[in-house]
Amino acid sequence: GGKEIIGPSRASQIMVHGFPGFDNLRTFEDFVLSYDRRTKTAHWVCEHLTPDRLEYDPSVDRAKCAFRSDESMHAYFRSDNTDYKGSGYDRGHLAAAGNHRRTQNAVDQTFLLSNMSPQVGKGFNRDKWNDLEKHVRKQTKKCVNLYVITGPLYLAKKEGDGNLYVKYKVIGKNQVAVPTHFFKSLLIERRPGEFEVENYLMPNEVIPDSVPISSFLVPQEMIERSGGFLLFEKLDKKKLKLVNGKAGGWW
Amino acid sequence: GGKEIIGPSRASQIMVHGFPGFDNLRTFEDFVLSYDRRTKTAHWVCEHLTPDRLEYDPSVDRAKCAFRSDESMHAYFRSDNTDYKGSGYDRGHLAAAGNHRRTQNAVDQTFLLSNMSPQVGKGFNRDKWNDLEKHVRKQTKKCVNLYVITGPLYLAKKEGDGNLYVKYKVIGKNQVAVPTHFFKSLLIERRPGEFEVENYLMPNEVIPDSVPISSFLVPQEMIERSGGFLLFEKLDKKKLKLVNGKAGGWW
Ligand SMILES: [Mg+2]
Ligand SMILES: [Mg+2]
Repeated sequence: GGKEIIGPSRASQIMVHGFPGFDNLRTFEDFVLSYDRRTKTAHWVCEHLTPDRLEYDPSVDRAKCAFRSDESMHAYFRSDNTDYKGSGYDRGHLAAAGNHRRTQNAVDQTFLLSNMSPQVGKGFNRDKWNDLEKHVRKQTKKCVNLYVITGPLYLAKKEGDGNLYVKYKVIGKNQVAVPTHFFKSLLIERRPGEFEVENYLMPNEVIPDSVPISSFLVPQEMIERSGGFLLFEKLDKKKLKLVNGKAGGWW
Repeated sequence: GGKEIIGPSRASQIMVHGFPGFDNLRTFEDFVLSYDRRTKTAHWVCEHLTPDRLEYDPSVDRAKCAFRSDESMHAYFRSDNTDYKGSGYDRGHLAAAGNHRRTQNAVDQTFLLSNMSPQVGKGFNRDKWNDLEKHVRKQTKKCVNLYVITGPLYLAKKEGDGNLYVKYKVIGKNQVAVPTHFFKSLLIERRPGEFEVENYLMPNEVIPDSVPISSFLVPQEMIERSGGFLLFEKLDKKKLKLVNGKAGGWW
């Protein structure tokens, strides 16, 4: 197909299968984000990818992009670069820069700190999580439309006293939450009207290279219950052919 | 004044000084609530009290009220009575039952579990927190209008490694968060157009009877930054005569 018109209608195109929530929405040129002012990072971001849209403009240069505060957030609730400095964590993209190279503005917007979460660098952001981002682009080349929702999670863990606790570090003067996990849910329109879903959940820690990304597939409900949102709610489930690689599998 | 009309306009009356947020709003007969589907308890509730509105109908009976799930929330995100059972925590009201005795329906709605958070019972819910609720009603009798916003907080704490962590227990199969703290912010219209603010922050733990509630007054910014919302944002600060009992004090 030809180039789509970039305009006000793009958000509804990205969100056509439903909004997980409506808290502090930001509609950027090429992705939509819901911001959590308590944790100072997003609830989720949603992207819409197509084979055409992945073809990038060679004049677009990631090296020109700068990590920067999202001034559209109130000063009490935004993170800044100093929060990350010396923390030991990367500023990890939620909407991946590599998915938005059709315009300089689109890729620039992925560098806003509202689109970042503190991620373990080596062994996660730069390795296994990056593999998952590459998997998304690889799938995009073999489908009609791909929708991907990405976000941080804060999972409860059983402690010695037998009780469950949610525990996460916060960094910098703005107390930016370090998520315990990240998820990525892919809705792949393989052929027109035929869909597949893949739900990945990864711990925010060093993951050995030898572990395949398929070992991080989880039931969608696990992400939804702990995240506090529903994914691709408007999708007609009858059109769903594969879930986590299986016919009639988990939903 | 005479009885106000209870109808669609009541929410805008309650929220006249601004909404702290817009996430999963519920407008009940006599209070407004924003629900956090991640923690399975509210972000905040807001009430509007007047001397008239505290005069209760003697036929209204709290004993007829039952704690019950808020079926308006998706099953993944609502708490139920079994979550609290055996947990050691009370189902603590955010909008206090005693503030809503003008109709049976109004007080009944305060017993929805969306209006509850797990609170330490003896020494907190039944004692110091209850004292604070009584203080609100006492203040109401000496003013024109009183607006009160109440909610749970999850405050970070420094651990042995020098880092800050947010840590809270979750209870029951729905993993309802046990807040580390609760806040109550009072906006008191002492005389028409003259306002006072009191911001209380209490730990969710046994508090000795000897500690006065005034020792829990905190700068409003502390509540706003950790809660991820702004309180009484629309109030013209020039009309603010006292903050935490002091002229020209903290805001
Ligand atoms: Mg990355
Ligand atoms: Mg109580």
